[in-house]
Amino acid sequence: MKWWLDACKVPNLAVKQQAEERQLQLTKPTGSLSELENVAVQLASLQNNPKPNVDAPWITIFAGDHGVMEENISAYPQAVTRQMLQNFATGGACISVIAKEYAATLQVIDCGSVGDEYDYAGVDRYCIAQGTANFAKQVAMTEEQCIQAMTLGCESVEKAIANNTSVYIAGEMGIGNTCSASAIACLLLNEDAEQLTGIGTGIRAEQLQHKKNVINQAIKLHQNYVLDDAFKALCAVGGLEIAAMTGAYIRCAQLGLPMIVDGFISTVSALLAVRINPVVRQWMLFGHQSAEYGHRRLLQELDAKPLLKLNLRLGEGSGAGASLGIIKLACSLHNNMATFAEAAVIGEKV
Amino acid sequence: MKWWLDACKVPNLAVKQQAEERQLQLTKPTGSLSELENVAVQLASLQNNPKPNVDAPWITIFAGDHGVMEENISAYPQAVTRQMLQNFATGGACISVIAKEYAATLQVIDCGSVGDEYDYAGVDRYCIAQGTANFAKQVAMTEEQCIQAMTLGCESVEKAIANNTSVYIAGEMGIGNTCSASAIACLLLNEDAEQLTGIGTGIRAEQLQHKKNVINQAIKLHQNYVLDDAFKALCAVGGLEIAAMTGAYIRCAQLGLPMIVDGFISTVSALLAVRINPVVRQWMLFGHQSAEYGHRRLLQELDAKPLLKLNLRLGEGSGAGASLGIIKLACSLHNNMATFAEAAVIGEKV
Repeated sequence: MKWWLDACKVPNLAVKQQAEERQLQLTKPTGSLSELENVAVQLASLQNNPKPNVDAPWITIFAGDHGVMEENISAYPQAVTRQMLQNFATGGACISVIAKEYAATLQVIDCGSVGDEYDYAGVDRYCIAQGTANFAKQVAMTEEQCIQAMTLGCESVEKAIANNTSVYIAGEMGIGNTCSASAIACLLLNEDAEQLTGIGTGIRAEQLQHKKNVINQAIKLHQNYVLDDAFKALCAVGGLEIAAMTGAYIRCAQLGLPMIVDGFISTVSALLAVRINPVVRQWMLFGHQSAEYGHRRLLQELDAKPLLKLNLRLGEGSGAGASLGIIKLACSLHNNMATFAEAAVIGEKV
Repeated sequence: MKWWLDACKVPNLAVKQQAEERQLQLTKPTGSLSELENVAVQLASLQNNPKPNVDAPWITIFAGDHGVMEENISAYPQAVTRQMLQNFATGGACISVIAKEYAATLQVIDCGSVGDEYDYAGVDRYCIAQGTANFAKQVAMTEEQCIQAMTLGCESVEKAIANNTSVYIAGEMGIGNTCSASAIACLLLNEDAEQLTGIGTGIRAEQLQHKKNVINQAIKLHQNYVLDDAFKALCAVGGLEIAAMTGAYIRCAQLGLPMIVDGFISTVSALLAVRINPVVRQWMLFGHQSAEYGHRRLLQELDAKPLLKLNLRLGEGSGAGASLGIIKLACSLHNNMATFAEAAVIGEKV
């Protein structure tokens, strides 16, 4: 029944070693391509393929609204969540442009936004709930809602694999969701809001202090319920889209599909996934270190070093998406550079 | 006569402002694409085009050998310079793969390597000298040789422009050239070798100390000759390929072609170019912060913040080349994202 606890696949270490040996033979000083070598080797191992690639990348944006918006914790109104869903689907959003740039499939899933029924072409609408409940006052999601959202993530990964993707990106949209993500992070890391709360889409200093107060109150409200249970933390203060990403990450690892983790909110989902099912960590690449305060701390917790640091703080999977080009290049270099023998270049040091 | 002192073009500030205003209208929180916004805006200004692009990028690799190799300062033998020239042209080198990845033209210019005459398809062979003289004992280049090399760079840029390139990258190859670059940097920044010398292609700790000693001796030998004259510093301890890149950078700015500066050695050329003709700085983008010790200090001196930091230390223009994909993405986002009005998304904060 609890599919998220099922075993993950294990990366192929023989292919990893084979890829490492190839890197040593390519016409460059040993180790001089550093992070580009590392990501190609990791991907070779994860794809069980000595010639790794990022062909047919898959990006799913999970959206959801947040009851904690009642507490005035965001710079933008809640209506923007739905407006952006349509923008994703019609090609005008950042992640839409990124998907086109790298020939990625972009799937848009509304896990539960606030408002009437609608029908936008290109948006898969589910209505698990009209957003979460206000976690400042009660549990954000029932366990059943949380499982439904995780299962949306799970099914998204299965669809990606059916479409022969080589790498999976989950992104999110949900006005107010940095507040939820920070609250989860506080519960998982036993920190207070000061360490893990940022400006999100761009609130002012006094609003930031208010946001921290809301989170600290919520931690007190929920901590006895949560204890050390990541799933319960997700139910208590999480979001439907955060749960969906958590489910997606777990399913990637169970089915052996490499994923590129995005920014602050995605990394909270990544941490949830790893706490729920630790082998998930082995299937993660990290695309970008966000400007959102607290991301660095989360990355440390996961021992993760993202490829890019462009100071982005947009969400939508944009940081992970932006890393696709660099990962593609890393694969091309790994696969197409000449060896010392092929090029008749001296590879031995003097 | 001294073409390198001729005036540079001035970037278009009206187009810069126009591009900045467009960024404020795109469907994202203000400033949330940070470095991607900055580079698109800068490129719009430099290209005098509100829709910037990196179409038809141009990469020239300048190669040269170094007399200071007599002092045993490198991990690899001098023969590798020529072997790699052939590897560039036949497509097996890192920069060859990068050029193919981003549909860039790759030009390979041998400014003066050691050895007999040769004829490699795809390599433009000049023989200003059979490498430089050993700067540990004498001036590396005559002023005439240095000017000849700078002019090779100048002509390369003119050829790139004739081929309708939108952005120019200079890279280098020359076993021993980090030693030369560090010596130039020391003379320009009035530092000793400790602050500006790294392991290059990968020498061991005791070799690194020896390399620093060689550089410090050379500084003492040449500093009275050089005084505060960047051109003389280049002649004294520079390399033919370093002079060629310096000439290329200056010519880019004179003709209004944006350039992407690469790693440690390229940045020494960039600093030389800026010292010789300060407006050159305005035409520079910086692709990558190298792992070579001393690059950070050079970047500070130029007030430069590279887009990438992948720990590369290969040369060949590889760091600048790797940034092409990110710059291309930045342009796509700038040009193709929807505005708030177009997408009917609320752009005002609450």
